[in-house]
Formats: sequence, C-alpha cells, structure tokens
Amino acid sequence: MAKKPLRIGLVGYGFMGRTHSNGYRKVSNFFDLEYSPVLKAVCARDEAKVKAFAEQWGYESTETDWRKLIVRDDIDAIDICTPNNLHKEIALAAAAAGKMILCEKPLSMNTAEGEEMVAAVEKAGVPNTVWYNYRRVPAVTLAKQLIDSGKLGKIFHYRANFLQDWTISADLPQGGAALWRLDAAAAGSGVTGDLLAHCIDTAIWLNGSIKNVSAMTETFIKERKHNLTGKVEKVSIDDACAFMCRFDNGSLGLFESTRYARGHKALYTLEVNGEKASLKWDLHDLHRLQYFDHGDEGIVRGWRSIHVTDGDQPYMDHWWVPGLQIGYEHTFIHQVADFLQALQDGKPCPPTFRDALETQKICDAVLTSAKSGTWQNVE
Amino acid sequence: MAKKPLRIGLVGYGFMGRTHSNGYRKVSNFFDLEYSPVLKAVCARDEAKVKAFAEQWGYESTETDWRKLIVRDDIDAIDICTPNNLHKEIALAAAAAGKMILCEKPLSMNTAEGEEMVAAVEKAGVPNTVWYNYRRVPAVTLAKQLIDSGKLGKIFHYRANFLQDWTISADLPQGGAALWRLDAAAAGSGVTGDLLAHCIDTAIWLNGSIKNVSAMTETFIKERKHNLTGKVEKVSIDDACAFMCRFDNGSLGLFESTRYARGHKALYTLEVNGEKASLKWDLHDLHRLQYFDHGDEGIVRGWRSIHVTDGDQPYMDHWWVPGLQIGYEHTFIHQVADFLQALQDGKPCPPTFRDALETQKICDAVLTSAKSGTWQNVE
Amino acid sequence: MAKKPLRIGLVGYGFMGRTHSNGYRKVSNFFDLEYSPVLKAVCARDEAKVKAFAEQWGYESTETDWRKLIVRDDIDAIDICTPNNLHKEIALAAAAAGKMILCEKPLSMNTAEGEEMVAAVEKAGVPNTVWYNYRRVPAVTLAKQLIDSGKLGKIFHYRANFLQDWTISADLPQGGAALWRLDAAAAGSGVTGDLLAHCIDTAIWLNGSIKNVSAMTETFIKERKHNLTGKVEKVSIDDACAFMCRFDNGSLGLFESTRYARGHKALYTLEVNGEKASLKWDLHDLHRLQYFDHGDEGIVRGWRSIHVTDGDQPYMDHWWVPGLQIGYEHTFIHQVADFLQALQDGKPCPPTFRDALETQKICDAVLTSAKSGTWQNVE
Amino acid sequence: MAKKPLRIGLVGYGFMGRTHSNGYRKVSNFFDLEYSPVLKAVCARDEAKVKAFAEQWGYESTETDWRKLIVRDDIDAIDICTPNNLHKEIALAAAAAGKMILCEKPLSMNTAEGEEMVAAVEKAGVPNTVWYNYRRVPAVTLAKQLIDSGKLGKIFHYRANFLQDWTISADLPQGGAALWRLDAAAAGSGVTGDLLAHCIDTAIWLNGSIKNVSAMTETFIKERKHNLTGKVEKVSIDDACAFMCRFDNGSLGLFESTRYARGHKALYTLEVNGEKASLKWDLHDLHRLQYFDHGDEGIVRGWRSIHVTDGDQPYMDHWWVPGLQIGYEHTFIHQVADFLQALQDGKPCPPTFRDALETQKICDAVLTSAKSGTWQNVE
Repeated sequence: MAKKPLRIGLVGYGFMGRTHSNGYRKVSNFFDLEYSPVLKAVCARDEAKVKAFAEQWGYESTETDWRKLIVRDDIDAIDICTPNNLHKEIALAAAAAGKMILCEKPLSMNTAEGEEMVAAVEKAGVPNTVWYNYRRVPAVTLAKQLIDSGKLGKIFHYRANFLQDWTISADLPQGGAALWRLDAAAAGSGVTGDLLAHCIDTAIWLNGSIKNVSAMTETFIKERKHNLTGKVEKVSIDDACAFMCRFDNGSLGLFESTRYARGHKALYTLEVNGEKASLKWDLHDLHRLQYFDHGDEGIVRGWRSIHVTDGDQPYMDHWWVPGLQIGYEHTFIHQVADFLQALQDGKPCPPTFRDALETQKICDAVLTSAKSGTWQNVE
Repeated sequence: MAKKPLRIGLVGYGFMGRTHSNGYRKVSNFFDLEYSPVLKAVCARDEAKVKAFAEQWGYESTETDWRKLIVRDDIDAIDICTPNNLHKEIALAAAAAGKMILCEKPLSMNTAEGEEMVAAVEKAGVPNTVWYNYRRVPAVTLAKQLIDSGKLGKIFHYRANFLQDWTISADLPQGGAALWRLDAAAAGSGVTGDLLAHCIDTAIWLNGSIKNVSAMTETFIKERKHNLTGKVEKVSIDDACAFMCRFDNGSLGLFESTRYARGHKALYTLEVNGEKASLKWDLHDLHRLQYFDHGDEGIVRGWRSIHVTDGDQPYMDHWWVPGLQIGYEHTFIHQVADFLQALQDGKPCPPTFRDALETQKICDAVLTSAKSGTWQNVE
Repeated sequence: MAKKPLRIGLVGYGFMGRTHSNGYRKVSNFFDLEYSPVLKAVCARDEAKVKAFAEQWGYESTETDWRKLIVRDDIDAIDICTPNNLHKEIALAAAAAGKMILCEKPLSMNTAEGEEMVAAVEKAGVPNTVWYNYRRVPAVTLAKQLIDSGKLGKIFHYRANFLQDWTISADLPQGGAALWRLDAAAAGSGVTGDLLAHCIDTAIWLNGSIKNVSAMTETFIKERKHNLTGKVEKVSIDDACAFMCRFDNGSLGLFESTRYARGHKALYTLEVNGEKASLKWDLHDLHRLQYFDHGDEGIVRGWRSIHVTDGDQPYMDHWWVPGLQIGYEHTFIHQVADFLQALQDGKPCPPTFRDALETQKICDAVLTSAKSGTWQNVE
Repeated sequence: MAKKPLRIGLVGYGFMGRTHSNGYRKVSNFFDLEYSPVLKAVCARDEAKVKAFAEQWGYESTETDWRKLIVRDDIDAIDICTPNNLHKEIALAAAAAGKMILCEKPLSMNTAEGEEMVAAVEKAGVPNTVWYNYRRVPAVTLAKQLIDSGKLGKIFHYRANFLQDWTISADLPQGGAALWRLDAAAAGSGVTGDLLAHCIDTAIWLNGSIKNVSAMTETFIKERKHNLTGKVEKVSIDDACAFMCRFDNGSLGLFESTRYARGHKALYTLEVNGEKASLKWDLHDLHRLQYFDHGDEGIVRGWRSIHVTDGDQPYMDHWWVPGLQIGYEHTFIHQVADFLQALQDGKPCPPTFRDALETQKICDAVLTSAKSGTWQNVE
C-alpha cells in the first residue's frame, strides 16, 4: 500500500540533525504506518556543509535561509534543531505558515518565549511535538505503564540525576558552533535547560505536576575563552544544579545535574519509590529496567533486572528478538513513529509544546530559586 | 605477653548492645594490642533480660541502675547504648566519675545537649568516642585514604543517601522499647538523627566542613498508635529528609534519607566526584569500592569495582585472605581496635564527642531549615 | 563525491534478511566510503511476501528463483540468508557467476561442504565474507585490540557460553519456515552450528587456533511435532553442547551452549584470562567490556566496567557521543562498512570463507567427539 | 540454663585453625543451643607458635604431639586442620579413641584413604563432619531450599567455577608450611582437591549424584623451587582442571577451577538452570542470590538480586537486621551451630565422612579421566 508522504524540512544539521534524520530514514523499515517521512530539504547557513549533510542523509534539496524553507509549498513539517535562542522565531514563522512543527528540546529560552510558541501553534492548529526523546526508551515507557497500572501504589519519592564530566577542563572554551551550550546567550541556561529539562519532562510524565522547588546552582569555572569574541569572558551558565521539590501527589523529588561528575559520560538515572513497588533506570544501560515488587514472596524478593527486549515490552515488537538490545538512536525513531501514528489518528503527539511549557516553567522556577535562595511555586 | 584489661560497663542491651559486645569479644583474636576488653558488667532495667544477655555474651555481672554501674571501681569505660534521650545524663555522670566513654550515635538529642557533653568529657579529660561505625568499613576507610592522597583532586560533588523501607505500613505503632526511633521524645528526630547523621559524619570526615544547608522533611504517616500510651497519636518524627549544602571546600552536597524507599533495606550510598577521580560506595555491598580514575588510558577507562579484601587495604590484614569478605559487624570490631590503639598511643579516637558535635550542629541546621524553608548556616 | 554503487541481491528475507538490509541502508549515513550499497533485488519463493519485504526495505526489484537472481547483470554481490542447507548450492552458483558473496553463518552444513565453497570462491577470485557479526561489537573489537597489543600477556584461559531458553517447552514444534533451526536436515546441527559457531569464530579470532576438543551434547526433548510432516518425529539436533579444548598457544578453552538455560535470552559471554590482564564481555550488555589490569596500583585494583561509547574506541567515532549506546543491529552495519572498505583497499574482509571453514572444522570435531566420547584433533 | 560443654581439641593452627576457632568462640553468642564449645587444647609441632595461638584464641592448653591430644580424657571432639596427608592417620586414631571428629576438607588424599576413614568413624559410631563450609552460606542454603521446594522444576544445567590468580608468578615456590597446597605429596592434588572439591560438594548436595565425567588438567608452570628441599623441582599438582559431567537426574554439568584466572581472588560461582526457574551465586558477593522465575509476569520478568539478610532467610534470624551483611567466617559458625544442633538431636551433621567420600570419588574420577582422556564412571 502506498504511503502518504510527510515532507520534512530540517533546520540545523548538528548532533540532533543527525539523530532526527536517522529517525525519519529508518521508521518505515520498522513500523507499518500510513505516513512515511520524505527528506525534502535541510537548511543551514554554511552552504558547503549543508550540501554535504544533504548528500550523506539523502535530503533532496538544501536551503541557507530558514525563512525560505518555511514558505516552501513542498514542505509539510519543520524540524527545529538550532540552538535554543532561535527556537521561538522559527516556530512562530512555521506556525504562521501552517507547518507542523517538531522542535528540539528545551522548547524555549524561558517561559515567556514558550508561552508565545504555545499560543502560536494552538492558534494555527498545527500538529506539534518536542523531542524529549527519553520518554521513548522502551524501559522508560515500561516504567510509565507500570506506574499507570497501579503496580507501585502511592508514590513517596522520585529522584533523578543527569551527570556528565565533559567540561571539567578549564581550557575548554565557550560559545560558537560546537560549544553554544556553554553560552547562556545561545542556550538560555546551562545544565538546567540542557539536562534537567530531560529529567523534569520524564518526571512530570511519570509522576505528575510539581508544586514547588528549592534549588542551588554553581558555576565552577568562572571564566572561559569565548569562541565568538576570542576573549576570556565570564561564564554565564550553570555548571551544576540541584533541586528539591514537592509533587502534587504528595511525593518528594530530588534532582541533580552537573557536567563535573568525573566518570559519568551521560548518566541519566531515575528512581521511583512507591508503596508497593519501586523502579530504577539509567541511560548508560538504557535497555534495562530495575524493578522491585514487595508483593513477591519474601525469601526470593529482590530487585529484578529486566532486559527490556521482549516483543510484549514497549516498541520491542518492531525490532529484533529477545536478548538483542537497541540503543540511543531508537528513541528518536520511536518519536517519529508516534508522531506519524498521531497524525494518522488525528491526535496530539506528546510532549506537545503545551506539555513542554510545563517543563519550562519548572526550569524557570528552579533558576529563580537558585538566585533567591527561597522556595518557588511553579505557577 | 599479658594484656592490660579495659573493663567495660555497658548500658543498654538492644541491637547496639549486641554489636558492641561482639566487638569487645572478638577484637583480641584478630588485633595484637596492649589492651584487651573485659566484659565486666551490663546494665538495664529488666533484671531477667539483662541477666540472660550477660550469660549469652559473657558479662561477669549485671546492674539495673546505670548510676550504680557508673560509680563501680572495677569499671574503666562506660558504653552508652540507650535511646538518645538518655545519652546526656549518663555521659555527664560517667565523665564526672572519671570513666572513659564510648557513646552510641547520634551524640545527643540536639546541639545544646551535645555542647554540655563535650564540655564534660573535655573537663574530665576522659577518652571518648562516638560509634559512627561506617567510617571503619574498609572500603570507606580506603575512600578516605584515596581522597587524602590527592587522587581525586579538587572535589566538586558529594552525594549520599540512606534509604530504608521498614515503616511504610500504617499499622506499625510508634514508641516503646522496640520502636523508640519513631518517637521524637526518645529519638530527638526521625531519619535525620538516625540515618542522615551517619551520612553527615562520613561526609565531613571525607570532605570537610559544611557551610550551609537547605532542607525539606516529610512525615508521610501522620498518626500512629503509640506503644506507651496505647492511643493513636501524632507522629512527631521526620519520615524523610533531604538537603542540599555547600561544603567549605566549594563542593556541593546532596543528601537524602527516608524509611519509605520500597526495596531498600539499609542502602547507605555515597559518591564523591573529584577533578581527577571519583568514588562510590554502598552499604548493601560494603566490601566493594567503585573507583574511576581519569588518569587511566582512555580506551580502557572505566569504573573499577574494587573488592576490598586484600591485606594492603585498610584493616584487611587482620582478617582472612583475598576474596573472602567481612560484614557489617566488623566495623564495630575495628572501632574497638582503634579505641584500644588510641589508648595505647595516648591519642584521641575519632570521632570524639567534639567531632560528633559538628554532626549534631548540621542536623540541627537541617531541621531548622526544613521548618523555615530557608538556607541555614551551620554556626 | 559520487559513490560507487555496490548492487546487492539478497536471498532470503527472514530475521537475517532484515539485519543485513538495515546494514546496507544505514552504512552510508555513518561511514564515508567510496562504495555505497544499492538494494537491487531480493529473492524468495513467496512472491507476495517478497514484494512486501522489498517495499518495506526499498529493494528495487524481486525474484522468486535465486538462480535467476544470480545471473542478473545488475547485481554485484549475492547475500545468502537462507537456511544452512542451501548455502553451498547458492554460493557455488554465485561464485561461478563471478559475484561477490556475503554468506550468513555458519558457512555450511559441515566441513566437506565448506571446503567446496572455499575452493569455489578462491577459484573465482570473488570477494567473500561470512556474517560472524559479533566480531564487530565495538567492545569485542576492543578486546581484540587489547589482546593484540600484548596487554594481557600470555593467555591461560578462554571461556565462552551462549545460553538461551526459548525451546524449553515440549509443545514447541520443529521445522518449517520459522523453526528450521530445530531441524537438522535444514540446520545441520542444533546449538553447535547456531550458537557455538559464533563463540568459536570469536575465540579463534581473539586467541588463535584450537588443537583438539572433547565434547558432550544432549537432546533434552526427544520428540517434537514436525511442521513439515505434521507428525511427531525424533528431534535430530543437539539442544545443548559443551566442550573443552586446548588452543595452539597452550591455553585451555571451555565452551557451552544451550537453549535450556532458563532466564537467558541470548547470553553470549566470553572471558579471557592472561598473565597480566583479563577481560570479559556479554551480549546482554554488549556496549560494555569488563577489564582487569594487574598492573594497576594494588589498593585500587579492580575489574573496570568500560562503557565502550567513546570516539577513540572501535567504530564509535561514527556514532553518537560518549555515554550513548548503540545496539545489536550495528554489528551488521559495521560488517558492511568493513566489507566496503576492504573492497576499496583490494583486501579480503575477514572472516572470509576460508576463515569460517576453520570454525566449521571445529564444529565437526565437536560433534564427532560428542558421539565418540573421545578427544578429537581439529584436523 | 547451663550449657553442656563440647570440649574441642584442635590439630593445626593455620588459616583453617583460625576460621574454626572463631566458629567455636562465637556460636553461643548468636545461637541458643544445649551445647557450647570449650576451647580445651590446640596442638601443633612448634611449641612457641602453638602457645601464642592458644593465647590469642583462648585455648586452655597446648600439645605438640597430636597422639597425646587424642587420648586426653578432657577432649570430646578432634578438629583436624592439618595438611591433607595427615587427615587419615589422625582420623583413624581419633575414631579409635572414641572422639567425635570435625575434619577439614577434602576428606582425604584419595578414595582409598577416604573409605578407610568412613569405615573407622562408622565402626566407632562417633559423630563426624567435614568442613565443606560453603553449604552454609545463607544464599547457598536458600538455593537448596528453592530447589528442594520444586521452584526450579526439572534441572537441565549445573555449572560451577572456582577461579583464583595467586600462583601466576613463576617465582612462587612450592611446599612447606605456607605453600603445601602446591605440593602433591601434602595436598594429594592441586585445584581439584582444593577448589573443585568445594564445587562438587555443593553440586551433589543441590543437584544429586554425578554419573560420569570427562576432564582436562594442566600444569602451567612446570617447575618451581621447593621450600623443603631448596631445589627446583617438577610441579606435581594440577594448576587448572575442567570437567564435563552428567548427573543422575539427566542434567549436564560443567566445572572449572584454576589458579591462573587473573583478576579473580576466590571467585566460586555456581548456576543452576531449571525448567521453571534458575539461580546463580558467587562467593565474591556471597550475601546475594540471583534468581529468575519464569512464572513472573512477562513484562516485568528479570533476574532478581536477592540480598539474603532477612530474618526469614536461612541463618539470618541469628544475626543483624535486614540489609546488613555477614561474611565468609560466618559459614564456619553455622557449621558449628549445626553440628551442636545435630548432637542435641542425635542426628548426623552433613556432610559426614560418608557424604564427603562421594566428593572424593568424583575427584578421583576427574583426575583419572584427565590422564586417560576418556570418560570415567563415578563408581
């Protein structure tokens, strides 16, 4: 049966440009859906580089001005993979042009921008989603199933960490194409928007809304050479951020993120403790879910290491056979598949811009609390 | 060579009475020291039970009034294993009687009491120590060696958890002999004094003083039947406590403790991230230390799981052969050995009352912060 | 730069047809090579199914008779993904037609067939390779690097297991499309050719030739319904096989495979013990290599868990960033990449048919030993 | 209640002399039994050393000639901790003197000696036991309970390894007090009697009798300086031994032991695969049992890591609280406790000499098979 094409226009070809492109290219080999992505155009300022990218990934055409891309008639959906400070402008224009939008996370530089973006897509009535990809790790989706099924009972504790170690060297510069994440002007914040935003998105999906927060941030290296100016400049991002919080359901939350945790490359961990059961997950072994069920017979009770590769576990009937693991890139393929399925069903594909706005509000409360030293309500 | 006796008078025969007695009985089989403990007397109010305990552990005599024990001429050292609300009174009397004191942790109900106790032992000039036993897990002592040797470099992060799950049932009563830890009148606080105090003692030993804290506490089950009154009464302890802090050395700390973490029996974990190396430890596999050394060659760099059972690792030349693990009870034997060695050397045996007072101050700041919702300096 | 096409003709569209097709489709997105695969044709007997497969994977055309596929001028390379009993006939015809051959493992039903196949490709002078994909797990390739660099020193022990549990039920039938691996007429043998062949290929690659073997096999379920005849028939394959061996380098080997190890889905594990270092790997966490280096300082010596996701580790510069794992399917992409690179360089791509013949000889010696109860030399 | 004394006479004060003495000293603190051991005498040839040992452990007296010890009226039980070549002579004399016997493992140098010893104790009617202590690791005892309860169903596979690395250096001498285990004249064999004997004892306890074996041994370092002669002499022990076997219940066994497995100090591992469940255990984390139950709901099925420290798990009601682990030495305390309980009940304390003789027969079959290269029945 012939597929309906979903013609993609990608803005930005960095790391996320690769993960998204791979998602578009692979989804139809593994998922039987009405829609199939077509790699119509990729856009970036450097013409030579964008052409090379297009050739490597099979994009049919290129643009060097995103405004031109957005108005093209042969594009159905705009995928925003730029640094954070361009999200709003592109999203607003794309919505105005009636395009669907798939926006890389975090949604925006701050809540105010996010609200404009939500208003724009909702007014335009265009399908929209934000690439909080970790929801679609099969083990994390399984965690969601278990919580929703009531297996954990009342939740008491939620904790999540996102630990990295790649900015410890004081010789690392900030800013520019490769290091815009170290520049608050391009990124909005440091680990809060980059890493904690992931933890928060998963947390509110699994455990509901957060009521209030108390946070602490730190910038360990105070000055770094800036790639755009060539001068040593003050570092404006947060290198590390921790916060305590209370969820609406009465449970306590504890979150931490840093790029100064020697030995951890990208260790996103989460744990949920419920009255009847608990679960744990970490990104370094993403294909496993740890699960403890107090209902097990006492003498053989213990944490189970679930190798999430069976066909009855989320997404896994689309892949290989039990015991054979998938990896990081598959989370993006799953998000494409779910976006296409939602399109087919006429439903939203979470997290939508509106869903992602909640994460933005929590990030803002966290940063405000860290400055003021007081508890902040998530408005 | 004949040993010098150290004649012990033990007050209290509960769980800690057993761990300490085992320490006294075993130390001379495994450590060659000038002093050897003699189990002279054990004291508790229930005569039949204290006699049975004395018989099982080989105490030569019993008392039912600790005031009588303290003034006995044939006792050198008083070991305080009572609920926390009796520590001060006994310690003051013992110091006045010129006895050495080994006091179970936490030192006291609060800072004020602790200051009186420190003043008393320092005025009396009696050797004193507090049973923060986890310093003497060989893997933790090894962590101390590694940090002090500079292997980790500048410290960025310290995090510790102490997670249990034994009070989740709402049917569990509070108070009385077995459950005094759930009664603030006997315990002073809940998980803060019971569990976080351990985490704090280890933390300041490994990473130095804490400057300020911001904390959150929760009591999940608001009322429980009280064993002493037979009535349902308000639960006055903290079921869970988390806090963020800043250490004097500039590193950030994150601590959490709860008795509502389903699946964790006594999971004390700690992790330290330094510029050059990191380490992790947990009580459920106490004979292992996890260590990551950034100095290792890149392609074979990874977290090392060190099985701390070799003769060149702390305390282990006294035990078996490589590969054969020791357990929880050995931490108390080590503390006895170190106390005897300190006596022989005329030196203090840390943590002394003064050392333990610092932990008390931090606990107080934590509890104050949790009430006020503000950052508290550790005065 | 325009790529040179490598026009693929795939025979068989089962599980391996999917893994290979995915390899061909993805390789050029991640590897910069002169050649790029073109999915020219796929061949299988069921016309409807083969057309559906072609559509899903983007094959340009289909065939239902492999003899027709082989003589097509627009095909450069034949990929054999059929049951084992067809490998020889197809390979001989493909070689005669001057096609390159990529043959799924094991090479053949037995040594005699394998020798014919080696003779055919060598006479024809066509590039050839056998899909022993586990060599190309980055952690396994890293193991090869470490051994070859001398880091392990003299090798004393090699042990490997391949444990599964999917045939425990006596109700499972044998034979036919889905279960030809349980039918010796189609598979040649049971776990020996299916699973141990993988272990043996890796072993001789890492540790050199095997001199002699002593083996034991078992068929736990003696009779199963046969899907082709509809009758209960004797099970002719080995359900489990273990063997001891001596390598030419003086080390001892121990191998085991079974489909009756409850709890293990596809647990391929290997361990190598050398004078100076040891290493371990398992397929259920394929992105990790365990490594112990006796040269480490004594007090911090331990098994390192290496998360093989850094750019300086084998193949990983082609994927994501440190900490983000790849999965099972990537091993096939790597083999395609290496085949294309070898083509570019005019070199063979191991394991060639000749390399794979050695594995076949060892499998035959194992099966002979199991029958005779005696040691067998690998001739 | 006054305890009945069990007056111990210990022969040998090496490593096992310490573990047994510790067992005798601690048992009555933790187990309420009618009998209580009394450390009456210890015997060894070096008078100064044996006196020092007696003082350290609290033995009331010493002997330098075991024949004198055995005839003492004030001794009830002889504990044999000598090198293996003295077991038989001492045991025969002790039985003749009507003493109970606790003999260190392996029972004897070979089957013939073992048969004489069994005959002697059975003729004399004296209680007897052999210190295969690993049966009494709580996790291993729990494994026995699970298997006996039918939780695993029909057993398909049993595998066990005992891996060490302490003899890799060619500079290590053989023979004499510390290194008699490297001298076949004192030890009977190498790893087979030392390490595999443990694996075999546990195996036949858990999984029943072994029918036949096929084995391979190796001596990697062919010559070492001998401590008794001062000359370089041929090494007569097996450095490594592996064997395959069939159990009477139809399951397959695979065993391996070596002292050349770099990175493993004393890694005794065992795994049992049954139709319905499987279990695994290793000595380096002896307080854990890994358990997989196929009866668990599919999506949350996984290996459970059971922390065997709860009061309803074997032996653990005698120790601390959940989460607090015990260690290696406790296995000996458990064996003393079980011996005392058996005495109280008038029952044998397994493994008796007769039980241990079966292990001896399997060891002999293993060594014979390794020499002959053929399968050997266990007669």
